[in-house]
Amino acid sequence: MSKKVAILMGSDSDLPIVKGAIHTLQGFGIHVEVHVMSAHRTPQLACDFSAKARENGFGAIICAAGKAAHLAGIIAAHTTLPVIGIPIKSSTLDGLDALLATVQMPKGIPVATVAIDGADNAAILAAQMLAITDDELSIKLSDMKKAMVDEVVAKDEKLQAELNK
Amino acid sequence: MSKKVAILMGSDSDLPIVKGAIHTLQGFGIHVEVHVMSAHRTPQLACDFSAKARENGFGAIICAAGKAAHLAGIIAAHTTLPVIGIPIKSSTLDGLDALLATVQMPKGIPVATVAIDGADNAAILAAQMLAITDDELSIKLSDMKKAMVDEVVAKDEKLQAELNK
Amino acid sequence: MSKKVAILMGSDSDLPIVKGAIHTLQGFGIHVEVHVMSAHRTPQLACDFSAKARENGFGAIICAAGKAAHLAGIIAAHTTLPVIGIPIKSSTLDGLDALLATVQMPKGIPVATVAIDGADNAAILAAQMLAITDDELSIKLSDMKKAMVDEVVAKDEKLQAELNK
Amino acid sequence: MSKKVAILMGSDSDLPIVKGAIHTLQGFGIHVEVHVMSAHRTPQLACDFSAKARENGFGAIICAAGKAAHLAGIIAAHTTLPVIGIPIKSSTLDGLDALLATVQMPKGIPVATVAIDGADNAAILAAQMLAITDDELSIKLSDMKKAMVDEVVAKDEKLQAELNK
Amino acid sequence: MSKKVAILMGSDSDLPIVKGAIHTLQGFGIHVEVHVMSAHRTPQLACDFSAKARENGFGAIICAAGKAAHLAGIIAAHTTLPVIGIPIKSSTLDGLDALLATVQMPKGIPVATVAIDGADNAAILAAQMLAITDDELSIKLSDMKKAMVDEVVAKDEKLQAELNK
Amino acid sequence: MSKKVAILMGSDSDLPIVKGAIHTLQGFGIHVEVHVMSAHRTPQLACDFSAKARENGFGAIICAAGKAAHLAGIIAAHTTLPVIGIPIKSSTLDGLDALLATVQMPKGIPVATVAIDGADNAAILAAQMLAITDDELSIKLSDMKKAMVDEVVAKDEKLQAELNK
Amino acid sequence: MSKKVAILMGSDSDLPIVKGAIHTLQGFGIHVEVHVMSAHRTPQLACDFSAKARENGFGAIICAAGKAAHLAGIIAAHTTLPVIGIPIKSSTLDGLDALLATVQMPKGIPVATVAIDGADNAAILAAQMLAITDDELSIKLSDMKKAMVDEVVAKDEKLQAELNK
Amino acid sequence: MSKKVAILMGSDSDLPIVKGAIHTLQGFGIHVEVHVMSAHRTPQLACDFSAKARENGFGAIICAAGKAAHLAGIIAAHTTLPVIGIPIKSSTLDGLDALLATVQMPKGIPVATVAIDGADNAAILAAQMLAITDDELSIKLSDMKKAMVDEVVAKDEKLQAELNK
Repeated sequence: MSKKVAILMGSDSDLPIVKGAIHTLQGFGIHVEVHVMSAHRTPQLACDFSAKARENGFGAIICAAGKAAHLAGIIAAHTTLPVIGIPIKSSTLDGLDALLATVQMPKGIPVATVAIDGADNAAILAAQMLAITDDELSIKLSDMKKAMVDEVVAKDEKLQAELNK
Repeated sequence: MSKKVAILMGSDSDLPIVKGAIHTLQGFGIHVEVHVMSAHRTPQLACDFSAKARENGFGAIICAAGKAAHLAGIIAAHTTLPVIGIPIKSSTLDGLDALLATVQMPKGIPVATVAIDGADNAAILAAQMLAITDDELSIKLSDMKKAMVDEVVAKDEKLQAELNK
Repeated sequence: MSKKVAILMGSDSDLPIVKGAIHTLQGFGIHVEVHVMSAHRTPQLACDFSAKARENGFGAIICAAGKAAHLAGIIAAHTTLPVIGIPIKSSTLDGLDALLATVQMPKGIPVATVAIDGADNAAILAAQMLAITDDELSIKLSDMKKAMVDEVVAKDEKLQAELNK
Repeated sequence: MSKKVAILMGSDSDLPIVKGAIHTLQGFGIHVEVHVMSAHRTPQLACDFSAKARENGFGAIICAAGKAAHLAGIIAAHTTLPVIGIPIKSSTLDGLDALLATVQMPKGIPVATVAIDGADNAAILAAQMLAITDDELSIKLSDMKKAMVDEVVAKDEKLQAELNK
Repeated sequence: MSKKVAILMGSDSDLPIVKGAIHTLQGFGIHVEVHVMSAHRTPQLACDFSAKARENGFGAIICAAGKAAHLAGIIAAHTTLPVIGIPIKSSTLDGLDALLATVQMPKGIPVATVAIDGADNAAILAAQMLAITDDELSIKLSDMKKAMVDEVVAKDEKLQAELNK
Repeated sequence: MSKKVAILMGSDSDLPIVKGAIHTLQGFGIHVEVHVMSAHRTPQLACDFSAKARENGFGAIICAAGKAAHLAGIIAAHTTLPVIGIPIKSSTLDGLDALLATVQMPKGIPVATVAIDGADNAAILAAQMLAITDDELSIKLSDMKKAMVDEVVAKDEKLQAELNK
Repeated sequence: MSKKVAILMGSDSDLPIVKGAIHTLQGFGIHVEVHVMSAHRTPQLACDFSAKARENGFGAIICAAGKAAHLAGIIAAHTTLPVIGIPIKSSTLDGLDALLATVQMPKGIPVATVAIDGADNAAILAAQMLAITDDELSIKLSDMKKAMVDEVVAKDEKLQAELNK
Repeated sequence: MSKKVAILMGSDSDLPIVKGAIHTLQGFGIHVEVHVMSAHRTPQLACDFSAKARENGFGAIICAAGKAAHLAGIIAAHTTLPVIGIPIKSSTLDGLDALLATVQMPKGIPVATVAIDGADNAAILAAQMLAITDDELSIKLSDMKKAMVDEVVAKDEKLQAELNK
């Protein structure tokens, strides 16, 4: 059976950003489980979820958190699954705090960090991981890449039409 | 009986910085316990230590960590004791990563952050916390303040002597 | 008698941020005294307040200031009580100036710095300091921690309901 | 047959950093192919390598580059395999330029970014990706996690011995 | 025949900024060709455009891109024409990511970088390049410089009138 | 009688930087008084010095301090004399902390800030202030400007000689 | 006769910020001359103004400019009068570019830099410079300082009234 | 006759960096003129050089300067030739000050900025500008590009040999 992807967010205020990841994964036909879970407010729940994630059928865990974003790091401490971190921009410092707190992990415990507020890319990255050994999913990713080319070409054609009016 | 202070460091490479805190606390006659303990490599040990710190006689916990420094935050998640964070400068970014990962804690879980590599001040801050209800320790802190005045005045006198040679 | 907590702010424009700290401390049953006081515009008042804070029954002093935030440092220079600094975000530099001016204190004079605009955490930290030797207050802090777990769990349940609609 | 991991570096001066990744992957029994390849100096070679990486048996591609680090992004543009980026610290800006140029990828083309100079973690992350569907490799990662606990515990014991001398 | 200038933008959302460059170049009587083209989404189109730009009559290529802005670098990798990069400010980090990803190019492949969102200056710079051997265009640039003096002097006179009312 | 200039430094470790200012001022024939004085360790001495500086014959006060550099701000709080701040680079953050803590002063209390470690310029600025109404000193400043031209011209001539060898 | 103060701004869009400086100086009874003048668009006018400023009766020159703010530096290159720089926040980078371009002047040519957008403080600093040898102006500055104390005390009293309602 | 390229540096201490540009340009057979010239210390010489550069046979001007690097901007203010800026790293702030002071030019006066200390790229960029209408030089640039490919391929082959030993 296909692996699931978990999406954990430190606060329900992150949902508007995280929704992009949910839709992207579901678009690939990947089963997604989403939770509000905090490294600092519900550390025990987070540790337990992570420790059992592999046996519960997950293939990758996406974590979104802002400020001193520790969620991805703590989840990564309790599992050998790949953990993807989305640094969330909050009211100060433009997301730089979350970026550094997510990406600068010490030796031994990596977090695969994507761009600040980059939820769609976190989902694509999770799909790429699952697609390493899943040819069907790999074809869907290729199709998405081709659709991106078509979309850019269409935008360029529209631009030419506008500029030549 | 007086409360103890715990000093936890994410890596034994932080010891040269942390030593300043050990000596300062011992100079105040405060009992210190020092451990290498990692939020990411030994998360269970860290959680357990923190959860039992109050009942084990600790009054404050000092945490030193570099890079995506999560140790102080994780310790703070498991105790109601005040937690003091020392951001450690590592080989890149001059300690800014550790500073932001330590100080920018979300609502509900504060970390009392001192300067990058500021181990002595972490120790003085811990002593100030214990001294809130400990008049004897409070007098030692006052004496230290007076000694600092004397030290600066002596340096100024030495400077005058040098400049007037 | 229980120790009081002082909250000093460099400008009355900081009140909207600081109010969170007032309410949090009062919620713990801690007596709070609040003042507008400036390191630069009323330095003498600030020095006097700080020098007499311990004998006036205070156990900790919270200072909120923006830009080249010197208030916490100056207060800390005149007392052996623990001083908590809240860096306030102002119109430029996103609070980084206030953060560095508050946290990077020289050896001998610590300021326990919390997140930019982190007034609630400053209040919780002050309560944690007072609770080192106050079991009743310590229990209130534990209860707050449990309430945070319940709140996150409730948000997660609400999220599951929404996603499964 | 097991998937291979490619390690590409923008310049042979990155080899001292990258060696950590080679050894870590080989320690897991993963076949590694290493190349000097530049997004700017040999763009065609880089595009070709990436476009054929999946059919050539690779499961993940690690890219190390400094300054305006474009290598990981360009490789990611030509494959649906997960691409891991190691930002390399160069003579100015402490690696911040490479970090931002690697992690801040636009929607559609993720790069799984690890810490500045974090080659070991890039290798572990690649292994975690391959281990999603490889139980044997997953056990090796668990063993490595346990060895990290033992190592930290041993360092703590050594510290206790030193401090109690 | 006079050389043309190409303006490439990574996304059609950059058009409001880029329009300034189009108008400025057309004001100099320079023929402009504008395209939406992405280093990551349409890498092959970008490489092909760049590789043939000189023989297709272009004298300079302006590239506008945000975040991990690789477009200018990739274009520069495939041509010996001068390439001008406009770092575009996006939703986080205020354009610093795009600035560093554009300007910090490795040895051998320069990108002539202008200010964040500095599209007008990119156009003037392209015109200056073409004017090295084009006296007529050089005179137009001198005239623009004189017009700038007149404009500032007029603003100063208006200010004097206002202040003396 | 001519006004004196005071140079205050937060720590005697700042002397190697500050010496440049002493020599520059003495070269202009300005009487200099130098003190080690700390905003945090000897706040009362600093306040007293500043409050009496004008009546004691000073025309300007130069303050050098590192990290959360409060010295210039505190001195400025107690005098109406112009106060010049030299941000000192310390072991972390490359002087950015001292720069922001010195220059970002709140409305009402300016500090005339010069470059990080810019002691010579602090001295020249103090001389320029005294020279507003001192024609003799003004001529010395003009002479220094002319000498700078000669020095650059000489260096250029030496360079031409070298390159043409 | 009293010295005048010049206020130069790089663009008339800086006027809303600069107005604070005009009013503050006029409040001290200082004669002010205000000009739009650009280091880059009208360099000759700027050089001429500066070169003749002292003989034209000016005692200090305030320069406001944003982005790569060169105005203060260029003015300082042509006069021995003290030059005060106001870094102006523009649409990107929050004023950090203007701050560094204003304050980091090379040896020999100081610019007295105030806070980003700190026009009022630039005016007070200019008044302090003129007051070095002007007792009447010095008294006005003392009165302003006293008024600041009264204002803060009044705000504190108003706060006490509000909190005790 | 072919256009010359001027290289101006703010201080003779920049020569070790700038030498790379001299050699690169001479390698292309381009005539180079090198001068020490300062925006602040010899502003008149700089303005005069720039104003006459076109008529004196120059096609582009390269300016290297550190800290509040104004040289490129001032040169650009006086000519319609393209001006290339090399931000030089100095003792503090890792070149960020010079980068922002060089690249963030206001509308109307572009500076073509290359990487911090990127002298070689400044030279290549100047050659690319001259090569817009110079086919022979354009071929030399293509040859250099091909040599870069060969060099990288050779390094990769050497690496393969080492790894397979």
